[in-house]
Amino acid sequence: MAATKAKPAKKRTPRAKGKGRGGRVASGRSARPRVRLENDERRAQLLSLAQRVFTERAYDDVSIDDLAAAAKISKGLLYHYYPTKRDLYVASLRETAAELLAAVSTATAADAAPAERVRAGLDAYLRHVKGLGKVFVALLRGGIGSDPEVADVLEETRRAFLDQFLARAEMARILASSPLVHLALRGWLGMVEATSIEWVANSVVEREALRDLLVENLIAILRNARPAPSG
Amino acid sequence: MAATKAKPAKKRTPRAKGKGRGGRVASGRSARPRVRLENDERRAQLLSLAQRVFTERAYDDVSIDDLAAAAKISKGLLYHYYPTKRDLYVASLRETAAELLAAVSTATAADAAPAERVRAGLDAYLRHVKGLGKVFVALLRGGIGSDPEVADVLEETRRAFLDQFLARAEMARILASSPLVHLALRGWLGMVEATSIEWVANSVVEREALRDLLVENLIAILRNARPAPSG
Repeated sequence: MAATKAKPAKKRTPRAKGKGRGGRVASGRSARPRVRLENDERRAQLLSLAQRVFTERAYDDVSIDDLAAAAKISKGLLYHYYPTKRDLYVASLRETAAELLAAVSTATAADAAPAERVRAGLDAYLRHVKGLGKVFVALLRGGIGSDPEVADVLEETRRAFLDQFLARAEMARILASSPLVHLALRGWLGMVEATSIEWVANSVVEREALRDLLVENLIAILRNARPAPSG
Repeated sequence: MAATKAKPAKKRTPRAKGKGRGGRVASGRSARPRVRLENDERRAQLLSLAQRVFTERAYDDVSIDDLAAAAKISKGLLYHYYPTKRDLYVASLRETAAELLAAVSTATAADAAPAERVRAGLDAYLRHVKGLGKVFVALLRGGIGSDPEVADVLEETRRAFLDQFLARAEMARILASSPLVHLALRGWLGMVEATSIEWVANSVVEREALRDLLVENLIAILRNARPAPSG
Protein backbone atom coordinates (compact mmCIF):
# COMPACT_ATOMS: atom_id res chain seq x y z
CA MET A 1 0.00 0.00 0.00
CA ALA A 2 2.91 2.34 0.68
CA ALA A 3 3.86 2.02 -2.98
CA THR A 4 0.56 3.26 -4.35
CA LYS A 5 -0.20 6.90 -4.96
CA ALA A 6 -3.89 6.62 -4.23
CA LYS A 7 -3.83 6.82 -0.43
CA PRO A 8 -1.05 9.15 0.59
CA ALA A 9 -2.71 10.33 3.78
CA LYS A 10 -0.20 8.70 6.11
CA LYS A 11 2.85 8.80 3.83
CA ARG A 12 5.95 10.33 5.34
CA THR A 13 8.27 12.52 3.35
CA PRO A 14 11.96 11.70 3.88
CA ARG A 15 12.87 15.38 3.68
CA ALA A 16 11.11 16.13 6.91
CA LYS A 17 12.87 13.37 8.86
CA GLY A 18 15.42 14.31 11.47
CA LYS A 19 14.02 17.79 11.92
CA GLY A 20 12.80 16.91 15.42
CA ARG A 21 9.69 18.24 17.09
CA GLY A 22 10.66 21.85 16.77
CA GLY A 23 7.45 22.99 15.13
CA ARG A 24 7.42 25.61 12.44
CA VAL A 25 10.49 27.45 11.24
CA ALA A 26 9.72 31.11 10.69
CA SER A 27 9.85 31.93 7.00
CA GLY A 28 12.22 34.86 7.57
CA ARG A 29 14.88 32.55 9.02
CA SER A 30 14.77 30.04 6.19
CA ALA A 31 17.42 30.12 3.50
CA ARG A 32 14.58 29.68 0.97
CA PRO A 33 11.41 31.75 0.85
CA ARG A 34 9.27 28.69 1.39
CA VAL A 35 8.12 27.86 4.85
CA ARG A 36 9.35 24.40 5.82
CA LEU A 37 6.99 22.68 8.17
CA GLU A 38 6.79 19.27 9.67
CA ASN A 39 4.57 16.92 7.71
CA ASP A 40 1.63 17.01 10.09
CA GLU A 41 1.78 20.76 10.36
CA ARG A 42 1.99 21.09 6.61
CA ARG A 43 -1.04 18.87 6.21
CA ALA A 44 -2.95 20.86 8.82
CA GLN A 45 -1.99 24.07 7.06
CA LEU A 46 -3.12 22.72 3.67
CA LEU A 47 -6.41 21.43 5.08
CA SER A 48 -7.17 24.72 6.75
CA LEU A 49 -6.31 26.57 3.55
CA ALA A 50 -8.51 24.22 1.52
CA GLN A 51 -11.42 24.69 3.95
CA ARG A 52 -11.17 28.43 3.35
CA VAL A 53 -10.58 28.36 -0.41
CA PHE A 54 -13.32 25.82 -1.21
CA THR A 55 -15.72 27.76 1.01
CA GLU A 56 -15.05 31.03 -0.79
CA ARG A 57 -14.92 29.75 -4.36
CA ALA A 58 -16.62 27.16 -6.53
CA TYR A 59 -14.74 23.85 -6.74
CA ASP A 60 -14.31 24.12 -10.51
CA ASP A 61 -12.93 27.65 -10.22
CA VAL A 62 -10.05 26.60 -7.94
CA SER A 63 -6.91 25.27 -9.61
CA ILE A 64 -3.96 23.41 -8.12
CA ASP A 65 -1.88 26.47 -9.05
CA ASP A 66 -4.14 28.69 -6.96
CA LEU A 67 -3.87 26.34 -4.00
CA ALA A 68 -0.08 26.05 -4.24
CA ALA A 69 0.25 29.82 -4.54
CA ALA A 70 -2.01 30.41 -1.54
CA ALA A 71 0.01 27.87 0.51
CA LYS A 72 3.29 29.42 -0.70
CA ILE A 73 4.61 26.01 -1.78
CA SER A 74 5.47 24.49 -5.13
CA LYS A 75 2.92 22.51 -7.09
CA GLY A 76 5.27 19.53 -6.75
CA LEU A 77 5.18 19.68 -2.96
CA LEU A 78 1.40 20.08 -2.96
CA TYR A 79 1.09 16.99 -5.21
CA HIS A 80 3.30 15.12 -2.76
CA TYR A 81 0.71 15.59 -0.04
CA TYR A 82 -2.45 15.52 -2.17
CA PRO A 83 -2.05 14.02 -5.64
CA THR A 84 -5.18 15.74 -6.96
CA LYS A 85 -7.38 18.72 -6.15
CA ARG A 86 -10.12 16.27 -5.33
CA ASP A 87 -7.93 14.47 -2.75
CA LEU A 88 -7.30 17.76 -0.97
CA TYR A 89 -10.97 18.69 -1.17
CA VAL A 90 -12.12 15.37 0.29
CA ALA A 91 -9.45 15.56 3.02
CA SER A 92 -10.59 19.06 3.97
CA LEU A 93 -14.21 17.88 4.24
CA ARG A 94 -13.05 14.99 6.44
CA GLU A 95 -11.14 17.41 8.65
CA THR A 96 -14.17 19.69 9.10
CA ALA A 97 -16.36 16.71 9.94
CA ALA A 98 -13.81 15.30 12.41
CA GLU A 99 -13.53 18.62 14.24
CA LEU A 100 -17.30 18.88 14.53
CA LEU A 101 -17.60 15.32 15.83
CA ALA A 102 -14.83 15.94 18.36
CA ALA A 103 -16.69 18.98 19.71
CA VAL A 104 -19.88 16.94 20.15
CA SER A 105 -18.03 13.99 21.62
CA THR A 106 -16.40 16.12 24.33
CA ALA A 107 -19.79 17.46 25.38
CA THR A 108 -21.75 14.22 25.58
CA ALA A 109 -20.96 12.34 28.79
CA ALA A 110 -21.53 8.62 28.30
CA ASP A 111 -23.30 8.30 31.64
CA ALA A 112 -25.79 11.14 31.11
CA ALA A 113 -29.51 10.44 30.69
CA PRO A 114 -30.51 10.15 27.00
CA ALA A 115 -32.40 13.47 26.80
CA GLU A 116 -29.59 15.29 28.62
CA ARG A 117 -27.06 13.69 26.30
CA VAL A 118 -28.95 14.86 23.22
CA ARG A 119 -29.38 18.36 24.66
CA ALA A 120 -25.67 18.69 25.54
CA GLY A 121 -24.58 17.24 22.20
CA LEU A 122 -26.81 19.63 20.25
CA ASP A 123 -25.56 22.57 22.27
CA ALA A 124 -21.94 21.72 21.48
CA TYR A 125 -22.85 21.05 17.85
CA LEU A 126 -24.61 24.39 17.39
CA ARG A 127 -21.80 26.31 19.13
CA HIS A 128 -19.19 24.69 16.90
CA VAL A 129 -21.29 25.13 13.76
CA LYS A 130 -21.70 28.82 14.53
CA GLY A 131 -17.93 29.14 14.86
CA LEU A 132 -17.39 27.37 11.54
CA GLY A 133 -19.91 29.58 9.75
CA LYS A 134 -19.61 29.24 5.99
CA VAL A 135 -17.15 26.33 6.32
CA PHE A 136 -19.98 24.31 7.85
CA VAL A 137 -22.35 25.23 5.05
CA ALA A 138 -19.69 24.20 2.54
CA LEU A 139 -19.28 20.85 4.30
CA LEU A 140 -22.94 19.96 3.99
CA ARG A 141 -23.71 21.68 0.72
CA GLY A 142 -20.39 20.45 -0.65
CA GLY A 143 -19.76 17.29 -2.51
CA ILE A 144 -18.34 17.05 -5.98
CA GLY A 145 -21.23 16.09 -8.17
CA SER A 146 -22.00 12.48 -7.50
CA ASP A 147 -18.59 11.84 -5.96
CA PRO A 148 -18.87 8.62 -3.94
CA GLU A 149 -16.04 9.48 -1.56
CA VAL A 150 -17.65 12.78 -0.64
CA ALA A 151 -20.93 10.99 -0.06
CA ASP A 152 -19.07 8.53 2.17
CA VAL A 153 -17.57 11.30 4.30
CA LEU A 154 -21.02 12.77 4.93
CA GLU A 155 -22.56 9.37 5.49
CA GLU A 156 -19.93 8.29 8.02
CA THR A 157 -20.31 11.62 9.78
CA ARG A 158 -24.07 11.20 10.04
CA ARG A 159 -23.69 7.71 11.45
CA ALA A 160 -21.14 8.92 14.01
CA PHE A 161 -23.50 11.73 15.01
CA LEU A 162 -26.38 9.40 15.66
CA ASP A 163 -23.99 7.35 17.81
CA GLN A 164 -22.91 10.44 19.72
CA PHE A 165 -26.29 12.05 20.15
CA LEU A 166 -28.10 8.94 21.19
CA ALA A 167 -26.88 6.45 23.76
CA ARG A 168 -25.21 3.72 21.75
CA ALA A 169 -26.58 0.52 23.21
CA GLU A 170 -30.16 1.62 23.57
CA MET A 171 -30.23 3.15 20.11
CA ALA A 172 -28.92 0.03 18.44
CA ARG A 173 -31.79 -1.86 19.97
CA ILE A 174 -34.39 0.71 18.89
CA LEU A 175 -32.97 0.92 15.36
CA ALA A 176 -33.08 -2.82 14.98
CA SER A 177 -36.68 -2.82 16.17
CA SER A 178 -38.24 -0.97 13.25
CA PRO A 179 -37.24 0.30 9.80
CA LEU A 180 -39.68 3.19 10.27
CA VAL A 181 -37.84 4.30 13.44
CA HIS A 182 -34.58 4.10 11.56
CA LEU A 183 -36.03 6.32 8.81
CA ALA A 184 -37.42 8.70 11.42
CA LEU A 185 -33.99 9.09 13.06
CA ARG A 186 -32.35 9.78 9.72
CA GLY A 187 -35.07 12.32 9.14
CA TRP A 188 -34.36 14.00 12.45
CA LEU A 189 -30.69 14.27 11.51
CA GLY A 190 -31.72 15.81 8.18
CA MET A 191 -33.74 18.31 10.19
CA VAL A 192 -30.74 19.11 12.40
CA GLU A 193 -28.61 19.72 9.30
CA ALA A 194 -31.19 21.82 7.47
CA THR A 195 -32.03 24.01 10.48
CA SER A 196 -28.39 24.56 11.43
CA ILE A 197 -27.45 25.60 7.89
CA GLU A 198 -30.33 28.08 7.86
CA TRP A 199 -29.47 29.24 11.38
CA VAL A 200 -25.79 29.84 10.56
CA ALA A 201 -26.71 31.83 7.45
CA ASN A 202 -29.49 33.91 8.99
CA SER A 203 -29.57 33.57 12.68
CA VAL A 204 -32.24 35.54 14.50
CA VAL A 205 -33.20 32.64 16.74
CA GLU A 206 -31.26 32.03 20.00
CA ARG A 207 -29.15 28.89 20.14
CA GLU A 208 -31.10 27.61 23.14
CA ALA A 209 -34.45 27.98 21.30
CA LEU A 210 -33.23 25.98 18.32
CA ARG A 211 -31.66 23.35 20.59
CA ASP A 212 -34.89 22.92 22.56
CA LEU A 213 -36.95 22.71 19.37
CA LEU A 214 -34.68 19.95 18.04
CA VAL A 215 -34.86 17.98 21.30
CA GLU A 216 -38.67 18.27 21.43
CA ASN A 217 -38.94 17.28 17.78
CA LEU A 218 -36.80 14.20 18.34
CA ILE A 219 -39.16 13.08 21.10
CA ALA A 220 -42.22 13.74 18.90
CA ILE A 221 -40.69 12.04 15.87
CA LEU A 222 -39.80 8.91 17.82
CA ARG A 223 -43.30 8.87 19.30
CA ASN A 224 -44.85 9.13 15.83
CA ALA A 225 -42.66 6.35 14.47
CA ARG A 226 -43.26 4.09 17.47
CA PRO A 227 -46.91 3.95 18.55
CA ALA A 228 -45.90 2.58 21.97
CA PRO A 229 -42.96 4.68 23.20
CA SER A 230 -40.70 3.21 25.90
CA GLY A 231 -39.68 6.54 27.42
CA MET B 1 -27.50 39.85 -22.68
CA ALA B 2 -27.71 37.95 -25.95
CA ALA B 3 -24.09 38.91 -26.57
CA THR B 4 -22.68 37.28 -23.43
CA LYS B 5 -21.60 33.67 -23.25
CA ALA B 6 -22.55 33.19 -19.63
CA LYS B 7 -26.26 32.39 -20.02
CA PRO B 8 -26.74 30.39 -23.19
CA ALA B 9 -29.75 28.46 -21.95
CA LYS B 10 -32.23 30.14 -24.29
CA LYS B 11 -29.88 30.75 -27.19
CA ARG B 12 -31.14 29.61 -30.59
CA THR B 13 -28.88 28.10 -33.14
CA PRO B 14 -29.41 29.46 -36.67
CA ARG B 15 -28.66 26.04 -38.14
CA ALA B 16 -31.86 24.61 -36.76
CA LYS B 17 -34.09 27.30 -38.22
CA GLY B 18 -36.44 26.41 -41.01
CA LYS B 19 -36.49 22.75 -40.07
CA GLY B 20 -40.13 22.97 -38.96
CA ARG B 21 -41.72 20.93 -36.21
CA GLY B 22 -40.82 17.60 -37.70
CA GLY B 23 -39.26 16.13 -34.59
CA ARG B 24 -36.32 13.82 -34.77
CA VAL B 25 -34.75 12.57 -37.96
CA ALA B 26 -33.78 8.94 -37.65
CA SER B 27 -30.02 8.55 -37.67
CA GLY B 28 -30.09 5.95 -40.41
CA ARG B 29 -31.75 8.38 -42.84
CA SER B 30 -29.25 11.18 -42.25
CA ALA B 31 -26.45 11.79 -44.71
CA ARG B 32 -24.08 12.15 -41.75
CA PRO B 33 -23.81 9.69 -38.89
CA ARG B 34 -24.84 12.34 -36.38
CA VAL B 35 -28.43 12.52 -35.33
CA ARG B 36 -29.81 15.95 -36.14
CA LEU B 37 -32.49 17.01 -33.75
CA GLU B 38 -34.40 20.15 -33.14
CA ASN B 39 -32.83 22.39 -30.52
CA ASP B 40 -35.27 21.60 -27.75
CA GLU B 41 -35.08 17.91 -28.40
CA ARG B 42 -31.31 18.04 -28.47
CA ARG B 43 -31.28 19.85 -25.15
CA ALA B 44 -33.69 17.34 -23.67
CA GLN B 45 -31.52 14.50 -24.94
CA LEU B 46 -28.37 16.06 -23.47
CA LEU B 47 -30.04 16.72 -20.13
CA SER B 48 -31.30 13.19 -19.89
CA LEU B 49 -27.86 11.87 -20.81
CA ALA B 50 -26.22 14.13 -18.22
CA GLN B 51 -28.66 12.97 -15.52
CA ARG B 52 -27.59 9.42 -16.23
CA VAL B 53 -23.85 10.01 -16.61
CA PHE B 54 -23.47 12.23 -13.53
CA THR B 55 -25.50 9.74 -11.52
CA GLU B 56 -23.29 6.84 -12.51
CA ARG B 57 -19.90 8.53 -12.30
CA ALA B 58 -18.13 11.13 -10.18
CA TYR B 59 -18.29 14.65 -11.61
CA ASP B 60 -14.51 14.91 -11.88
CA ASP B 61 -14.29 11.60 -13.73
CA VAL B 62 -16.59 12.72 -16.56
CA SER B 63 -14.99 14.67 -19.41
CA ILE B 64 -16.60 16.72 -22.16
CA ASP B 65 -15.23 14.11 -24.58
CA ASP B 66 -17.10 11.36 -22.72
CA LEU B 67 -20.32 13.36 -22.84
CA ALA B 68 -19.99 14.18 -26.55
CA ALA B 69 -19.21 10.55 -27.35
CA ALA B 70 -22.19 9.30 -25.34
CA ALA B 71 -24.47 11.83 -27.09
CA LYS B 72 -22.95 10.90 -30.49
CA ILE B 73 -22.28 14.56 -31.31
CA SER B 74 -19.11 16.58 -31.79
CA LYS B 75 -17.50 18.42 -28.89
CA GLY B 76 -18.14 21.62 -30.84
CA LEU B 77 -21.87 21.00 -30.99
CA LEU B 78 -21.95 20.10 -27.28
CA TYR B 79 -20.13 23.36 -26.47
CA HIS B 80 -22.71 25.20 -28.53
CA TYR B 81 -25.45 24.05 -26.16
CA TYR B 82 -23.46 23.96 -22.94
CA PRO B 83 -20.19 25.92 -22.96
CA THR B 84 -18.76 23.96 -20.01
CA LYS B 85 -19.26 20.64 -18.28
CA ARG B 86 -20.48 22.57 -15.27
CA ASP B 87 -23.19 24.31 -17.35
CA LEU B 88 -24.52 20.94 -18.49
CA TYR B 89 -24.33 19.57 -14.95
CA VAL B 90 -26.24 22.50 -13.46
CA ALA B 91 -28.82 22.34 -16.26
CA SER B 92 -29.36 18.62 -15.63
CA LEU B 93 -29.91 19.27 -11.91
CA ARG B 94 -32.43 21.98 -12.80
CA GLU B 95 -34.23 19.58 -15.10
CA THR B 96 -34.49 16.89 -12.41
CA ALA B 97 -35.76 19.43 -9.90
CA ALA B 98 -38.32 20.85 -12.37
CA GLU B 99 -39.69 17.39 -13.15
CA LEU B 100 -40.07 16.61 -9.47
CA LEU B 101 -41.81 19.91 -8.78
CA ALA B 102 -44.16 19.34 -11.72
CA ALA B 103 -45.17 15.94 -10.32
CA VAL B 104 -45.97 17.47 -6.92
CA SER B 105 -47.74 20.44 -8.45
CA THR B 106 -50.09 18.22 -10.46
CA ALA B 107 -51.08 16.35 -7.31
CA THR B 108 -51.77 19.26 -4.98
CA ALA B 109 -55.14 20.84 -5.69
CA ALA B 110 -55.15 24.47 -4.63
CA ASP B 111 -58.57 24.15 -3.01
CA ALA B 112 -57.76 21.11 -0.85
CA ALA B 113 -57.54 21.37 2.93
CA PRO B 114 -53.95 21.98 4.15
CA ALA B 115 -53.40 18.49 5.62
CA GLU B 116 -54.88 16.84 2.51
CA ARG B 117 -52.70 19.01 0.31
CA VAL B 118 -49.55 18.00 2.19
CA ARG B 119 -50.55 14.32 2.11
CA ALA B 120 -51.28 14.36 -1.64
CA GLY B 121 -48.11 16.34 -2.37
CA LEU B 122 -45.95 13.94 -0.37
CA ASP B 123 -47.53 10.97 -2.07
CA ALA B 124 -46.74 12.35 -5.52
CA TYR B 125 -43.26 13.34 -4.37
CA LEU B 126 -42.43 9.88 -3.01
CA ARG B 127 -43.81 8.14 -6.13
CA HIS B 128 -41.74 10.35 -8.41
CA VAL B 129 -38.64 10.03 -6.24
CA LYS B 130 -38.93 6.25 -6.32
CA GLY B 131 -39.11 6.38 -10.11
CA LEU B 132 -36.02 8.60 -10.28
CA GLY B 133 -34.05 6.33 -7.97
CA LYS B 134 -30.35 7.18 -8.06
CA VAL B 135 -30.98 10.30 -10.14
CA PHE B 136 -32.84 11.73 -7.17
CA VAL B 137 -30.03 10.87 -4.78
CA ALA B 138 -27.58 12.54 -7.18
CA LEU B 139 -29.74 15.67 -7.27
CA LEU B 140 -29.67 16.12 -3.51
CA ARG B 141 -26.23 14.72 -2.83
CA GLY B 142 -24.95 16.55 -5.88
CA GLY B 143 -23.43 19.96 -6.03
CA ILE B 144 -19.97 20.79 -7.25
CA GLY B 145 -18.03 21.67 -4.15
CA SER B 146 -19.19 25.03 -2.96
CA ASP B 147 -20.70 25.90 -6.32
CA PRO B 148 -23.12 28.79 -5.74
CA GLU B 149 -25.28 28.01 -8.77
CA VAL B 150 -25.83 24.44 -7.63
CA ALA B 151 -26.72 25.70 -4.17
CA ASP B 152 -29.20 28.10 -5.83
CA VAL B 153 -30.91 25.29 -7.75
CA LEU B 154 -31.46 23.32 -4.56
CA GLU B 155 -32.49 26.41 -2.62
CA GLU B 156 -35.05 27.48 -5.23
CA THR B 157 -36.39 23.94 -5.35
CA ARG B 158 -36.82 23.86 -1.57
CA ARG B 159 -38.65 27.15 -1.59
CA ALA B 160 -40.95 25.98 -4.38
CA PHE B 161 -41.65 22.78 -2.45
CA LEU B 162 -42.70 24.63 0.66
CA ASP B 163 -45.02 26.68 -1.55
CA GLN B 164 -46.45 23.54 -3.10
CA PHE B 165 -46.77 21.46 0.03
CA LEU B 166 -48.29 24.14 2.15
CA ALA B 167 -51.12 26.43 1.14
CA ARG B 168 -49.44 29.59 -0.05
CA ALA B 169 -51.32 32.40 1.62
CA GLU B 170 -51.63 30.80 5.02
CA MET B 171 -48.01 29.71 5.06
CA ALA B 172 -46.71 33.17 4.21
CA ARG B 173 -48.58 34.47 7.24
CA ILE B 174 -47.23 31.75 9.54
CA LEU B 175 -43.67 32.16 8.26
CA ALA B 176 -43.77 35.88 8.84
CA SER B 177 -45.05 35.29 12.36
CA SER B 178 -41.98 33.61 13.81
CA PRO B 179 -38.38 32.92 12.82
CA LEU B 180 -38.55 29.70 14.86
CA VAL B 181 -41.50 28.45 12.77
CA HIS B 182 -39.55 29.31 9.64
CA LEU B 183 -36.58 27.26 10.93
CA ALA B 184 -38.91 24.41 11.89
CA LEU B 185 -40.39 24.26 8.36
CA ARG B 186 -36.92 24.21 6.81
CA GLY B 187 -36.09 21.44 9.23
CA TRP B 188 -39.16 19.47 8.16
CA LEU B 189 -38.07 19.78 4.54
CA GLY B 190 -34.61 18.54 5.53
CA MET B 191 -36.36 15.57 7.12
CA VAL B 192 -38.35 14.90 3.95
CA GLU B 193 -35.14 14.94 1.90
CA ALA B 194 -33.13 12.78 4.29
CA THR B 195 -35.85 10.16 4.71
CA SER B 196 -36.61 9.97 1.00
CA ILE B 197 -32.93 9.49 0.10
CA GLU B 198 -32.68 6.68 2.63
CA TRP B 199 -36.01 5.23 1.49
CA VAL B 200 -35.00 5.21 -2.20
CA ALA B 201 -31.71 3.51 -1.39
CA ASN B 202 -33.08 0.92 1.03
CA SER B 203 -36.78 0.79 0.97
CA VAL B 204 -38.40 -1.71 3.30
CA VAL B 205 -41.02 0.75 4.51
CA GLU B 206 -44.25 1.19 2.51
CA ARG B 207 -44.72 4.54 0.82
CA GLU B 208 -47.91 5.18 2.76
CA ALA B 209 -46.17 4.62 6.11
CA LEU B 210 -43.42 7.11 5.29
CA ARG B 211 -45.96 9.61 3.96
CA ASP B 212 -48.06 9.38 7.12
CA LEU B 213 -44.99 9.72 9.34
CA LEU B 214 -43.96 12.88 7.48
CA VAL B 215 -47.44 14.41 7.76
CA GLU B 216 -47.66 13.62 11.50
CA ASN B 217 -44.17 15.00 12.05
CA LEU B 218 -45.06 18.23 10.28
CA ILE B 219 -48.00 18.69 12.63
CA ALA B 220 -45.83 17.92 15.70
CA ILE B 221 -43.00 20.18 14.53
CA LEU B 222 -45.30 23.14 13.94
CA ARG B 223 -46.89 22.55 17.34
CA ASN B 224 -43.45 22.52 19.01
CA ALA B 225 -42.37 25.68 17.23
CA ARG B 226 -45.66 27.49 17.97
CA PRO B 227 -46.86 27.06 21.56
CA ALA B 228 -50.36 28.18 20.53
CA PRO B 229 -51.21 26.37 17.26
CA SER B 230 -53.99 27.84 15.12
CA GLY B 231 -54.99 24.53 13.59
